[in-house]
Amino acid sequence: MSKKPSLSHELTEQLRVREGFDLASFDRGARPGLKGGSSAAEDLLVEQGGILDELQEKLYAHGRSGGTRSVLLVLQGLDTAGKGGIVRHVVGLVDPQGVSIRSFGVPTEEERAHDFLWRIRRALPQPGRIGVFDRSHYEDVLVARVDELVPPDVWESRYDLINDFEAELVAAGTVVVKVALMVSYEEQGERLAERLERPDKHWKYNPGDIDTRLRWDDYQEAYQAVFDRTSTPHAPWHVIPADDKRYARLAVSQLLVEALESLDLDWPQADFDVAAEKERLEATRR
Amino acid sequence: MSKKPSLSHELTEQLRVREGFDLASFDRGARPGLKGGSSAAEDLLVEQGGILDELQEKLYAHGRSGGTRSVLLVLQGLDTAGKGGIVRHVVGLVDPQGVSIRSFGVPTEEERAHDFLWRIRRALPQPGRIGVFDRSHYEDVLVARVDELVPPDVWESRYDLINDFEAELVAAGTVVVKVALMVSYEEQGERLAERLERPDKHWKYNPGDIDTRLRWDDYQEAYQAVFDRTSTPHAPWHVIPADDKRYARLAVSQLLVEALESLDLDWPQADFDVAAEKERLEATRR
Repeated sequence: MSKKPSLSHELTEQLRVREGFDLASFDRGARPGLKGGSSAAEDLLVEQGGILDELQEKLYAHGRSGGTRSVLLVLQGLDTAGKGGIVRHVVGLVDPQGVSIRSFGVPTEEERAHDFLWRIRRALPQPGRIGVFDRSHYEDVLVARVDELVPPDVWESRYDLINDFEAELVAAGTVVVKVALMVSYEEQGERLAERLERPDKHWKYNPGDIDTRLRWDDYQEAYQAVFDRTSTPHAPWHVIPADDKRYARLAVSQLLVEALESLDLDWPQADFDVAAEKERLEATRR
Repeated sequence: MSKKPSLSHELTEQLRVREGFDLASFDRGARPGLKGGSSAAEDLLVEQGGILDELQEKLYAHGRSGGTRSVLLVLQGLDTAGKGGIVRHVVGLVDPQGVSIRSFGVPTEEERAHDFLWRIRRALPQPGRIGVFDRSHYEDVLVARVDELVPPDVWESRYDLINDFEAELVAAGTVVVKVALMVSYEEQGERLAERLERPDKHWKYNPGDIDTRLRWDDYQEAYQAVFDRTSTPHAPWHVIPADDKRYARLAVSQLLVEALESLDLDWPQADFDVAAEKERLEATRR
């Protein structure tokens, strides 16, 4: 029997949130769907690169030819969960021209003057693009809930608004891929310690990260509510064990591959007369 | 003596436009500064990737820590010159999070209602970013001149306006890297033929490309004027022989490396008390 590292076709399903999902008992150090360890994950990610690259180019070509489909990758996770690494090592595998990345921090004054989805709608990917949200509208039911930035009835009402909003996106042709990277409490502690230890990582550290860490249990509860209330058939959540960064990157690459494959795109038909153009070109010969 | 492929430190200087530069006699199949052939260029580009990656991360860290420097890569070239390939294979070497890519096509109605630099100013990279312009304000003295989209006195006045604008950018902390990719007439013909031959390339073809090809000599003249009038000490032009795509990519990667090195950035100093934060983190241990 072959011991070749490989990725199970069921990986995506194994990561998908289903009825009764329990975050508290979720193993953040596991590697579901992967035959092989962390370095196998790294090797497989290189292979995924070629696959993703062609699929993405087809999506781009589709958009350039009047097509309306797009993909939106929503990345959520607490500090140090590895969102930046996903952008760098997974999204970085494809042509940057076909990608639009937006990160959502504390809302500006202008953003606060509008409803919480306003800034999100403005950042949606154009047809033919892969949009990436580094944090997203889910912050409005995570930090907003934990830090009581708005009254309970306001954040309470947002879960349904989010579901409606995403249904609208999907109906308009966007495949919505929702990913929550979940690190363990211990691993987060080690990653923060590394940022404090290494001068080349200081810029990634923010004293606010400790304040958030002190609210760990509240955040876990808020995430559980997100999974319970916004994992819909049209836009399910995928929860990724993220203590092993390389596994997490491979898993997200597979989710992207499947999202792109689900579009089932082919190269666009020429909208000009190929034979006539060949003649015109021939006539330019000097 | 070693036959190892290598890149000369003088490559950049060899490509820089100087007094008396003559586009008509420029060899578009040459590989100045490269010891080795096309496949050597490909190997060296992989090495450049690691160098670029770290330099770009330092720039990003700088921006995240209140720094104001940025890099703007201006890409010009006729159809099929390889601008898209530069974005994909060179810009694609770095973290997409630190890059903003804008391509400038036919101006929209809103853009036409403003002066020609209006849409350009709105697309400038934020501090800490590498901005990439796929076509740029130079279209306003290229296609605008060749196709007489504006009267001669209008495009005539633009060279000085462009120089002033770029001087302003440089004074504000942006390194401006101007790159013109130059293919030969024959090579352009072959690349257009390939786009017509291969159904997976049809989407890249536009019948307008032949119209532009028919104005080849006018475009060469317009490019010569661009080099004569806008290659300034603060923002010089680099003309890249682009018949060999792999050489062109390597050359542009080297220009980017040098631009980033010229910023001479180090990792930002912590703006918090490292020892105190270590204690706060330690106190979160469970």
